[in-house]
Amino acid sequence: MLNKIETYMHLKDLGEFELIRRFAPRFSSNIPQGVEGIGNDCAVIPFRENHSLLVTTDLLVENTHFIRYQISAADLGFKSLSVNLSDIAAMGGKPRYAFLSVALPVDTPMEWIDDFMDSFAKLSEETGVLLLGGDTTRSTQIAINVLIIGEIETAFIKRRSQAIPGDIICCTGPLGDSGAGLKILLDGLPQEGISKELIEAHFRPRPQLEEGVWLARQPGVHAMMDISDGVASDIQRIMEESYCGAHIEVDLLPISENLRKTSAQFGWQTEDLALSAGEDYCLLLTVDPKNYDALKTAYFNQFHQPLHTLGKILPGSDLIYTLNKETFLPASGGFDHFKSH
Amino acid sequence: MLNKIETYMHLKDLGEFELIRRFAPRFSSNIPQGVEGIGNDCAVIPFRENHSLLVTTDLLVENTHFIRYQISAADLGFKSLSVNLSDIAAMGGKPRYAFLSVALPVDTPMEWIDDFMDSFAKLSEETGVLLLGGDTTRSTQIAINVLIIGEIETAFIKRRSQAIPGDIICCTGPLGDSGAGLKILLDGLPQEGISKELIEAHFRPRPQLEEGVWLARQPGVHAMMDISDGVASDIQRIMEESYCGAHIEVDLLPISENLRKTSAQFGWQTEDLALSAGEDYCLLLTVDPKNYDALKTAYFNQFHQPLHTLGKILPGSDLIYTLNKETFLPASGGFDHFKSH
Repeated sequence: MLNKIETYMHLKDLGEFELIRRFAPRFSSNIPQGVEGIGNDCAVIPFRENHSLLVTTDLLVENTHFIRYQISAADLGFKSLSVNLSDIAAMGGKPRYAFLSVALPVDTPMEWIDDFMDSFAKLSEETGVLLLGGDTTRSTQIAINVLIIGEIETAFIKRRSQAIPGDIICCTGPLGDSGAGLKILLDGLPQEGISKELIEAHFRPRPQLEEGVWLARQPGVHAMMDISDGVASDIQRIMEESYCGAHIEVDLLPISENLRKTSAQFGWQTEDLALSAGEDYCLLLTVDPKNYDALKTAYFNQFHQPLHTLGKILPGSDLIYTLNKETFLPASGGFDHFKSH
Repeated sequence: MLNKIETYMHLKDLGEFELIRRFAPRFSSNIPQGVEGIGNDCAVIPFRENHSLLVTTDLLVENTHFIRYQISAADLGFKSLSVNLSDIAAMGGKPRYAFLSVALPVDTPMEWIDDFMDSFAKLSEETGVLLLGGDTTRSTQIAINVLIIGEIETAFIKRRSQAIPGDIICCTGPLGDSGAGLKILLDGLPQEGISKELIEAHFRPRPQLEEGVWLARQPGVHAMMDISDGVASDIQRIMEESYCGAHIEVDLLPISENLRKTSAQFGWQTEDLALSAGEDYCLLLTVDPKNYDALKTAYFNQFHQPLHTLGKILPGSDLIYTLNKETFLPASGGFDHFKSH
């Protein structure tokens, strides 16, 4: 019976994480010293002495990650690079080289292509990235694959596996703005004023490269990753890799004034957006409690932005949410590209 | 008027090479010493002392590069890796690490995915490649992006730009078998006996890694690349990068017995298939005439296969074809993913 179910199982029955888990054994045999495969935002390859390369890749597909008539070519060019830069930031590295593959319908106007490339090239320059190669082909559905090679001093690499029970969980940005922007687009709400800013957060997430490099070098910073699928999902990646539990205090979620106002206007569940909508592309980290106060102060002095406390790493393997000291149940567990949403 | 034409130009009006040329300036500014972007089969990044990394990426899209119901998942897994390995071979390198992004329809059976991955993993192991990461997402059209990082001693890197007038042009394999295999598939011809072998040449091109590493180290080997778009197109890449002309003697094209028989049976133009169908994934190189005889002998002793002479590099910029000393005009200029064919 099991065999029969297995035979007729389709991709939609598995989530993205289950698919990666199914492939994982093929990613982990005979790995040489210093090389790391899946399990973090980037792969790690030893480079020159005391340095490693970080490599990350993301494939964006029309109608899964974006809708052609809702995103401008310039925004798509920005975002397809930005989400990869965020993975380099997540491990504390500096991005160096980019490879870009694009599949485009033959009736794509040259103006669209030029706008896409101008925007991609502008963000590349701003972040010190050299576009070294890629591939172009025709398709019916737009698909964009970006791969970034970054560099880091090996001793400073931050991973998902370094959380320790007692660590403070914190993040570098407000949560849910990007998800709210997407909701405005999908629900066809008016795009003006605050709504426009939320859509901007969705289309143009700023990769937190300087923050990542700085945080990776501070004492007491343990695990780090970027928030791409939503805290509710991403904290589970840290828990799995660090063999620990976590307590998220929903009261503490950093919610922007824009999101508060818009949620109030449309009756949205702000906490669920902040926890589960994802694509925030800020950094999620765990910090030794004895270093936390000093880190918070130093971070503010450095970036004139607060570090936001979210909760605490626990022993065991439970993920607990509380709101005003009461148990809280989030509506969804984070974004999954293979499951309908 | 020019502006108006420009504004309404679409991707289909540009070929793949024109598109790459349009992007090229964005790929070539401020490149540090030792780094190379587009212009060869791989990008080059300086690695540890006297060594460089080679990086290549290919995006395969359903209905452009393959038809879902004509290629098995196992063959697609093989080919998507193989065509990238061929680019590493083309510059003389050894492949090390792979990154694989797949976009798949949600109704893809798990069995298909497992067959694809098993085949990809098997060729990875055989060629010493570690699969270090990637991305998975859903789509309506299958898209597969593979990126390979290889390694080479910097002094041995072979490029398209190293041809010199007087060089002998040669290649390492028969030409046209893969194109014939594709023709059998597209024309719906019976798939048995010889036809099956030609289809195998199309679906499972063997990357010439050992040949590439060996050739790159031999005296007198100047330019090198792999034959992906067909000699008629690929020799033009060498001419552009080396600022030279070329004379191809169509009489000398290495045609397999299988292709001869099949062409005779169906009345195909064998020479056009051999020149322009592409996807041969053998190596195209130019060799100093004073080293050529010794190289041919040494190559045969090493690989028990002949090096095939195709013609000669000329001064100037003309590409000349002759058949029995008479001028020959090939039917098409090689494969282009944006133009209909």
